[in-house]
This record gives sequence, C-alpha cells and structure tokens, in this order.
Amino acid sequence: MTKMKNIIVVGGDGFCGWPTALHLSGQGHNITIVDNMSRREIDAKMGADSLTPIASMEDRLLAWKEKTGLTIKFEKIDVAREFDRIRELMAAVKPDTIIHFGEQRAAPYSMKGVSEKRYTVDNNISGTHNLLAASVELGLDAHFVHLGTMGVYGYDDDGIEIPEGYLPVYIPGDDKKIFQRHILYPTNPGSVYHMTKSMDQLLFQFYAKNDQMRITDLHQGIVWGTQTNETRLDERLINRFDYDGDYGTVLNRFLMQAVVGHPLTVHGTGGQTRAFIHIQDTVKCLALAVANPPVRDGKVAIMNQMTETHTVRELAKLVSETSGAKIANVDNPRNEAAENDLRVSNKTFISLGLKPVTLAEGLMDETQHIAAKYAGRCIRKMIPCVSTWTDNQRPGVIDPENSRAA
Amino acid sequence: MTKMKNIIVVGGDGFCGWPTALHLSGQGHNITIVDNMSRREIDAKMGADSLTPIASMEDRLLAWKEKTGLTIKFEKIDVAREFDRIRELMAAVKPDTIIHFGEQRAAPYSMKGVSEKRYTVDNNISGTHNLLAASVELGLDAHFVHLGTMGVYGYDDDGIEIPEGYLPVYIPGDDKKIFQRHILYPTNPGSVYHMTKSMDQLLFQFYAKNDQMRITDLHQGIVWGTQTNETRLDERLINRFDYDGDYGTVLNRFLMQAVVGHPLTVHGTGGQTRAFIHIQDTVKCLALAVANPPVRDGKVAIMNQMTETHTVRELAKLVSETSGAKIANVDNPRNEAAENDLRVSNKTFISLGLKPVTLAEGLMDETQHIAAKYAGRCIRKMIPCVSTWTDNQRPGVIDPENSRAA
Repeated sequence: MTKMKNIIVVGGDGFCGWPTALHLSGQGHNITIVDNMSRREIDAKMGADSLTPIASMEDRLLAWKEKTGLTIKFEKIDVAREFDRIRELMAAVKPDTIIHFGEQRAAPYSMKGVSEKRYTVDNNISGTHNLLAASVELGLDAHFVHLGTMGVYGYDDDGIEIPEGYLPVYIPGDDKKIFQRHILYPTNPGSVYHMTKSMDQLLFQFYAKNDQMRITDLHQGIVWGTQTNETRLDERLINRFDYDGDYGTVLNRFLMQAVVGHPLTVHGTGGQTRAFIHIQDTVKCLALAVANPPVRDGKVAIMNQMTETHTVRELAKLVSETSGAKIANVDNPRNEAAENDLRVSNKTFISLGLKPVTLAEGLMDETQHIAAKYAGRCIRKMIPCVSTWTDNQRPGVIDPENSRAA
Repeated sequence: MTKMKNIIVVGGDGFCGWPTALHLSGQGHNITIVDNMSRREIDAKMGADSLTPIASMEDRLLAWKEKTGLTIKFEKIDVAREFDRIRELMAAVKPDTIIHFGEQRAAPYSMKGVSEKRYTVDNNISGTHNLLAASVELGLDAHFVHLGTMGVYGYDDDGIEIPEGYLPVYIPGDDKKIFQRHILYPTNPGSVYHMTKSMDQLLFQFYAKNDQMRITDLHQGIVWGTQTNETRLDERLINRFDYDGDYGTVLNRFLMQAVVGHPLTVHGTGGQTRAFIHIQDTVKCLALAVANPPVRDGKVAIMNQMTETHTVRELAKLVSETSGAKIANVDNPRNEAAENDLRVSNKTFISLGLKPVTLAEGLMDETQHIAAKYAGRCIRKMIPCVSTWTDNQRPGVIDPENSRAA
C-alpha cells in the first residue's frame, strides 16, 4: 500500500509530466497539476503540433475521471512569473512532494536565437528558484523532485563512467599531501537548455545545505515512446508525440520519419552515444523517487534516469532495417564531438526495483504504430532541424533530401 | 601608452563601479556608464544611506568633466529588465570591453527574505545572461569582464590553497587507471548572492565554449577603504561608504563603529578567515584585466582579486587597539563554520604588476578619517545585522549592546 501524498506536479501538461501525473493519481496520490500551457503555445508559434491529437486539459481530466473515478486538480499558473499565485497554491495544498517538470526542455529551441536563449534562462531559473524560495518561506517540508538531464554531465569521453551526480576526486596539495573530496560532477552542458539544468544543480545544492530541504534531481536520458499504461486507457488521455526539429527526440523522430517516407536525418556521423529511457520507465522512476525521499543530510540526492545507451547511428540502422527507410547524414547543427563513448551508472533506480523496458522488447512497434496511425497529421516542413548552435554554422535550413548521402 | 578602448561599465554608480569608471576614464578610455540606480533605491527602501554624501550621477559626471576635462557618458538602463535598450546601446557603442558590476552584491540582503532572494537571483542571472546573449547576437567581439567573488569557492578548510578558478584533480577509473582533469573549482556558495555568482560561472563557461567569447571573471575578496586617486579629486566625486548590516563590509563597519562609539560587532567567535583588498587595488586590478584580455581558447580566465587574508577577530583587535573601541561578540546570523583557515593564490595579478596596498600601510587612517568626518550622518539603527540565514536562526534584531561580552 502506497501512503497517499499531496503532490503538486509542475509542468503536468507536458510529455513527461502528463503521464507521471496520471500514474501517481492511479497509485492513490492526491494530484494537483500546475502548468502555464507554454508547450502548446510554443508549438502554435512555431507552426508545429504534437503528431498525436492531444486533448485540452479539461477533456484530459474529464476522461481520467470517467475511466478511473479519480480526480486530478489543475491550476494554470506560470511559476516563473506568477510567484504570488504559486505561493498561495502551495500554502493551500501543503504538498508532501513537489515534482518540477516546468522548464523549457528543448536544446535546439534554446539555441534558436536570442529570444529563445533568454526565455529558457529566465523561465527555467526563475521558475525553479521561485518554487524553492516559496517552500522555505512557507516552512513546507515538501520533498522536491526535479527532472534534470544527462546533458549536465557533458560527453567528455575520457573513459570515466558517469556516476550519479557526485565524483570522488583526489587533489594534490602542499608537502605532497593528497586530499580527497566528493564533488558535484563538473558540469559541461552543450546548450543553453542544458546549462540551465546545470545552474539548477547549484540552486539545489544551496537550498539543501542552507535550509535542509530534501531534494531529488533526476538526470534523465533521451525519452522515447509515447504511451504508458494510463495514457492508453482512452484516446483523450493520449500523450504528446513531438517530431519537429526542435522538440522531437531522436528515436521518435526516426520512427515517424520512416512512417511518412522521409529519410532518417542523422546529424553528422551519428557517432554520438546517448542515454535512453522509455516513457513508461520515466513514470516508474518518478514514482520510485516520490516513494523514496532522501534523508535530510544537506545533500541533494542525484539519480541517473536512463536504462540503455546507443549511438544515433545504431538507432538509425535499427529503424532503417525494420522499415526500409533511407538514412541521410546531414550537417550537425550542434557544437559537439562527432563521436563519443558513454558509460553511465543507474544503480539507484535498479536497486529500487526498476525493471527497464528495452528497445529490443517490442515497444518500438507501438511507437511505430502510433506514428503510422497519425501520419496524416504530420507537417513535413517541421521535420528538419533548423536551430544551429553558433552563428558561423547557420547554413539555412538543413534539407536532408539535398544532403550528402549516407 | 594605453590603447583607447570603448568600454561599457555596467553598475558604474556602485562602490566598485564608480571608482573603476573614473580610473579607466583617466587612462584615456571612452567610458559609458550603465546603471539602473538600484543601489540607491535599495538604500532608500531600507532607510539606509551611504555614510559619505554621494552626489547625483549628473553632478558626479559634471565634477569629473570640470576637474579633468574628460567626458563619461551615462545611460540609466536596467540590464535585467530592459533587454532591447541595453542591446541598442551595445550596438551603438560597439564596446571593446564590457565590465559587469551590475549585480545585487550583498550576501545579507540576499538572505533577508523571499523577495530579496528572488530579486537577487532574477536580477543577477537575467542581467548577466542578457549581456552575454546580446553580445553574441550582435556579433560583438567585446572582452567581457565580470566581478565575481571569493565566496564562490566556499571555505572548505581541508588544507587546499584556493587556486585561480580551476583545480587539477585525479579521478580513479576502471582497471586502477587514474584520469586527470582540470576542472572548474567545485563551488560551495554560502548565500543566495554568492550562489548567483557561482551560477554566473556556468553562464561564462558555456558562452566561452560555445561562442568563443573572451571572458574574465574576477573573484574578489572583501573590499575595504573608500577613496581612490580619482574620487579624491573633488568632494562631488566621493565614493559611497556602506556601514549598515546588509551592505557594509566588515572592516569599514568596524572603523565606522569605532568612530561613533558603537561596539565592534563580531559575528560568533570572529574566527572566520576572509580575503581582503583595498578599493584602490580593485580599480588597479580592473585596469589590468581590461588591458590583458584572455586568448580565445574557449575557456574563461579566472583571477583572484584579493591581496591579504585576515580573521575577523584580528581586524576587530586591530581597530580596537588603535581606537579604544570595545568588541562585542554577537550571534552569527550566517550559516557558516565558526573558524576556518584560508590560503588563496593571487599570482596572476601579482605577475601583471599589481603592488598591493596592505592594511599595515596607513590607508586605514584615511578610512577612519572619512568615517569621522561624516559620523554625523550615521543612522545608528542601521548598524546591527538583522538578516539571518535560516528561519530557525531568526532571533529578532541582534543587539550588540545586549549580547555576551567579548
């Protein structure tokens, strides 16, 4: 039996937030979703849209009530800009747990131009800090769970396994003495978005140390898949599926490209190794994190929320083999190493009982099925990735159908 | 001969910014001061004021023109909130150098309450990021010089000399292999203010790496003194002197307390060792930093801007011996170690030719003289430090005249 908790899910309309809110509601927790609906607004501004037809928040919550009898509350609040409102809600809800997904989360979007860079920094930092500062001011003892990213670690590729947040190091001192410290892993973010999650780490470090807040930071890999056990219950509960060059994640983009007959757009050589997790495991990890708050020791609990690593090239090959889609190696708009190795520890979630869904286990079929079902909704011109990392890279639109062959 | 540069000094009305602007103007540079005048506004809101009667910006610049024939331009812009205006100014000035002092800089103020925490984070992060993002968007090749703080390092006191920004570490890997990395010194800020300067470091790391910006971050110690060669030229050029519990720095507070017959307020045992620098050396360091931009190697140049270390107790004793003032050990409102040792490298500025002014050299007399001259302006109730670091410390006003004896 799970003990019922009052949980605020900030960003509960998003790709990870929505299925997490449903899963925790299904576990018997009392859920209040907070969202400023910015993800839908950004889509509207860009002329993009979820491939899946996502229902309005009102219809989503009505469907959930109909199917399960469970009530999820919703407040439209911008936590970065409406401090008094989020503070008031926190005072009323008295949450046991605050889950914070409410950040601008696309690296390419964060690099699009000066407005998007500024929005990402201002929104992500002020939003996160407002939640922390309000918690302290109100004297709440809420466990703060934040969605971080594997990208804070960077991809230094010197042979060190990425640990869970902290790194034991030896420091040479005077008189040939050697000092040992256990430090926050030195961050090396690759985009403005990843940078904000690195900065968040310093906010957490401070509030854990100074105010003895209990904070869990989940450094997540790249999510693939769309549906979870809860979002499958009704079409109105369906999760969003992004395939555009800014918000679409690599494997989902490949699966969708294959379905609509678009070449699989591999940036550069595709030798980039990245960490992955299925959306079903995301919600399981969040439930495990909520059920296991850290001890109050002045230190942030950091877990790596990923289950397997692959190169982009491998993923393209896999999708190409099963679908017959062609592979197009296009210029890499990112400022990153062409090839890297990656080993990551995820021992905490495994020790807490996570049984990962792997790529090999057929859930790719479901994602392909979803992509096929809604292929008619695809806006083809949104597929290429047009956000470049530096000005001297700006080549105009990268057109995979007019690129060097794979 | 110094080559004339176009320099924007953000925060050029402040304690360090104003004398720096004058010094660089005196060197022949073309100076534009940008300030939102927030420091004066905060004083007005708190009911505090500079002990020295600082002139309006208009009168300051008029006096400078009268005394030297030199023109300094001024724009009242809030760099955190008026992005379009600062961007426009940067496009017009085409600065060779941008010096950024424009941050909320008092640790106690940043811990006063939720509004001050939020203001410090929002103002400092958005302001710094706006300047960086505008530089990149405009394609400026300006050298960015930022005033950091020694406080980013924290006071871990395990015997390691604080290096200049970077730390060589050894990391144990698989198969008993040892990996070496040169990392950004793991930050351990002690207040929301210091935390923002730690977060700034990540902004700089990213913009240096991604956009090849040339950035110098100056981790300054606690500044003492008031006047520089330039501010002495005319009373209308006088620098500000803060003595209140939020903005006053420790040695200046002691000197002023001695003059007005107030006990010297030592927090806790006074065993905290801190790094110090005289305001005259601050302006010299800034001039050296401006004259020596780093190479464009994707890495931030970090220098420690301090000249000597002392315990708070030592400083109190020194002032007590010369003035006869009593020492009052009051509760420490900060969340910090009672006693620590501190060794700091400042080799870059020394190698660039800095000849430090030391406490022993009599400039304390000048500060004491300034304090005595304007003692009549002292608002006694502003002397105690009432900002506490955590809620459970909040003891009301710390009254040194009703505290345990030294």
